[in-house]
Amino acid sequence: MKQVIIINEPLKLPKGKLAAQVAHAAVASFISANSSRQKEWLDEGMPKVVLLANSEKELIEYYQKALNANLPAQLIKDAGRTVIAAGTLTCIGIGPAPEKDIDRITEHLKLVS
Amino acid sequence: MKQVIIINEPLKLPKGKLAAQVAHAAVASFISANSSRQKEWLDEGMPKVVLLANSEKELIEYYQKALNANLPAQLIKDAGRTVIAAGTLTCIGIGPAPEKDIDRITEHLKLVS
Repeated sequence: MKQVIIINEPLKLPKGKLAAQVAHAAVASFISANSSRQKEWLDEGMPKVVLLANSEKELIEYYQKALNANLPAQLIKDAGRTVIAAGTLTCIGIGPAPEKDIDRITEHLKLVS
Repeated sequence: MKQVIIINEPLKLPKGKLAAQVAHAAVASFISANSSRQKEWLDEGMPKVVLLANSEKELIEYYQKALNANLPAQLIKDAGRTVIAAGTLTCIGIGPAPEKDIDRITEHLKLVS
């Protein structure tokens, strides 16, 4: 089991803001998963990776692919109180779900360094 | 309601690693809260902030203060597969809990930029 968070790289969010948005995606996607997937992922130590997308459009495409594969997934929009315009897509969360199901969708994406 | 994540600033984690650790703390602390706190925080849009601590020792102090105040809190240690030594404390999560209860403990800490 794993969870991936894909970020909107061109936004170049400052690190604290980015971390908060990724955390938001992690919790939102976690609570949208069924309880057996939640439990299994927690038992395995919550493995997660953070990946890069090149645009808001790409984030939406990955989100749709995840939903089409029946994986838990959530789009995260910023409330716009601080760094960026309200409603900007900052990231998506996919999973917890079986690693192979997620990799089939996200295998071409780069890791955030 | 809010949640705070306090990071071990001197580690200078790269942004992807930091985001993953903060997400880990957010989920771990969330699941350690009781369901009425969870629900209230989710209904309010999961407000969270990311704050800075100056050492592992300081993280442990804030964690103890949170536990002493009966707030949900979790210490996050890195599994050590990538950037830093196994067992290093990377961050702590506190809450979801009432904002005033958290602020009483963390009000002197700086926001991560």
